[in-house]
Amino acid sequence: MGRPHTYDRPAGVIGNTRGEYRSRKGTGMRGYTDKKDAVSKRLRRIEGQVRGLERMVEEDAYCIDVLTQISAVNRALQAVALELLDDHLSHCVAEALSQDGGDPEGKIAEASAAIARLVRS
Amino acid sequence: MGRPHTYDRPAGVIGNTRGEYRSRKGTGMRGYTDKKDAVSKRLRRIEGQVRGLERMVEEDAYCIDVLTQISAVNRALQAVALELLDDHLSHCVAEALSQDGGDPEGKIAEASAAIARLVRS
Amino acid sequence: MGRPHTYDRPAGVIGNTRGEYRSRKGTGMRGYTDKKDAVSKRLRRIEGQVRGLERMVEEDAYCIDVLTQISAVNRALQAVALELLDDHLSHCVAEALSQDGGDPEGKIAEASAAIARLVRS
Amino acid sequence: MGRPHTYDRPAGVIGNTRGEYRSRKGTGMRGYTDKKDAVSKRLRRIEGQVRGLERMVEEDAYCIDVLTQISAVNRALQAVALELLDDHLSHCVAEALSQDGGDPEGKIAEASAAIARLVRS
Repeated sequence: MGRPHTYDRPAGVIGNTRGEYRSRKGTGMRGYTDKKDAVSKRLRRIEGQVRGLERMVEEDAYCIDVLTQISAVNRALQAVALELLDDHLSHCVAEALSQDGGDPEGKIAEASAAIARLVRS
Repeated sequence: MGRPHTYDRPAGVIGNTRGEYRSRKGTGMRGYTDKKDAVSKRLRRIEGQVRGLERMVEEDAYCIDVLTQISAVNRALQAVALELLDDHLSHCVAEALSQDGGDPEGKIAEASAAIARLVRS
Repeated sequence: MGRPHTYDRPAGVIGNTRGEYRSRKGTGMRGYTDKKDAVSKRLRRIEGQVRGLERMVEEDAYCIDVLTQISAVNRALQAVALELLDDHLSHCVAEALSQDGGDPEGKIAEASAAIARLVRS
Repeated sequence: MGRPHTYDRPAGVIGNTRGEYRSRKGTGMRGYTDKKDAVSKRLRRIEGQVRGLERMVEEDAYCIDVLTQISAVNRALQAVALELLDDHLSHCVAEALSQDGGDPEGKIAEASAAIARLVRS
């Protein structure tokens, strides 16, 4: 593998999101672009789990079973978060290695703040 | 309300076992029955937050913003869990005070296991 | 086992701690009295782990290894907390079953608040 | 301070491998070297908090008060962990920017694993 992250976003892409403004080169490079489909799929499964929780409560499921399911959803969300974070950090380093601008140090600071929120949430 | 928890338990129910608590058609003695609507509403809101997460990823939102939102969903789920747990524990004590059977000690043991899962999730 | 918690504290005990004022009967019943030695031992081991952390930093140990050790200490502390909590909850139910006063509902409320702090810490 | 991280690395060190970072007599390139005194001081304070916990248990302190104190120690440990992690990540990026070897990608992978342990602990 040559470079860990390459993003083949078409030039002139429309539909910029807020994130792009953080990227100096305006390439909209997301750390997780490569894995977007996998992340989306996992989030849809989590959405299904939350709907399952609603159904459990609707049907008066035993409280402890609801709690067990909530713990499972939390773990699933954390797994997504950890994967996104890993991609973000790899991306920061890749950006630093590529020496083509960007703000890897600023992104590391943002990542540290996000990690703190995760650890405390 | 005089006592914090009153349950319209049919007279003559002796020695409820945990199994009964799982029955849909049972007496509906859920610790959280009183708050079912509030819990359902919060879960629907959480479902909406998860859908928001899917949309963010779809639109290539900035990774850190996705992480921040995941932390918010985790906290919201924890808040639901803590409320369910508080109701469950109050219910255990109410059951013990009422002295009419049930298995408050068994439920406390279940609750402790659920707390451990929450703390570690 | 007849009753889950009996506390053979001598009457007229001196050296009351703050906790006693919470007990209507002034028996100073601690939920964890039975397990005090085990809890003390675990805390001493945790103290040793923290000293190990200090030594690691002193000797410029690799950052990731320090983090791994911090996670281990956190888990050990959580295990102590979960055990204390389980004892406290069992004690609340025992107190409710014994019908001899006390404030099991108040203690459950305190426990719920403590659980919330643990889950969020 | 111009660059956020400068390491008095001996000239002529090429292609550091991770192994070197573990060597006590190595170059001392710890992400947290700059902050070693502050980290040591915080750990000593945490050690004191754990000893306080032992004393509380010894004196039969109220269970909930012990739990509150455990939560405080956990948060203090997490704060140390988050600071060490931030330094480690900044160090990875600085190393990548300096382009003089090292294995920033490997270190990011290690950091991600450590973050996962922290989030789950």
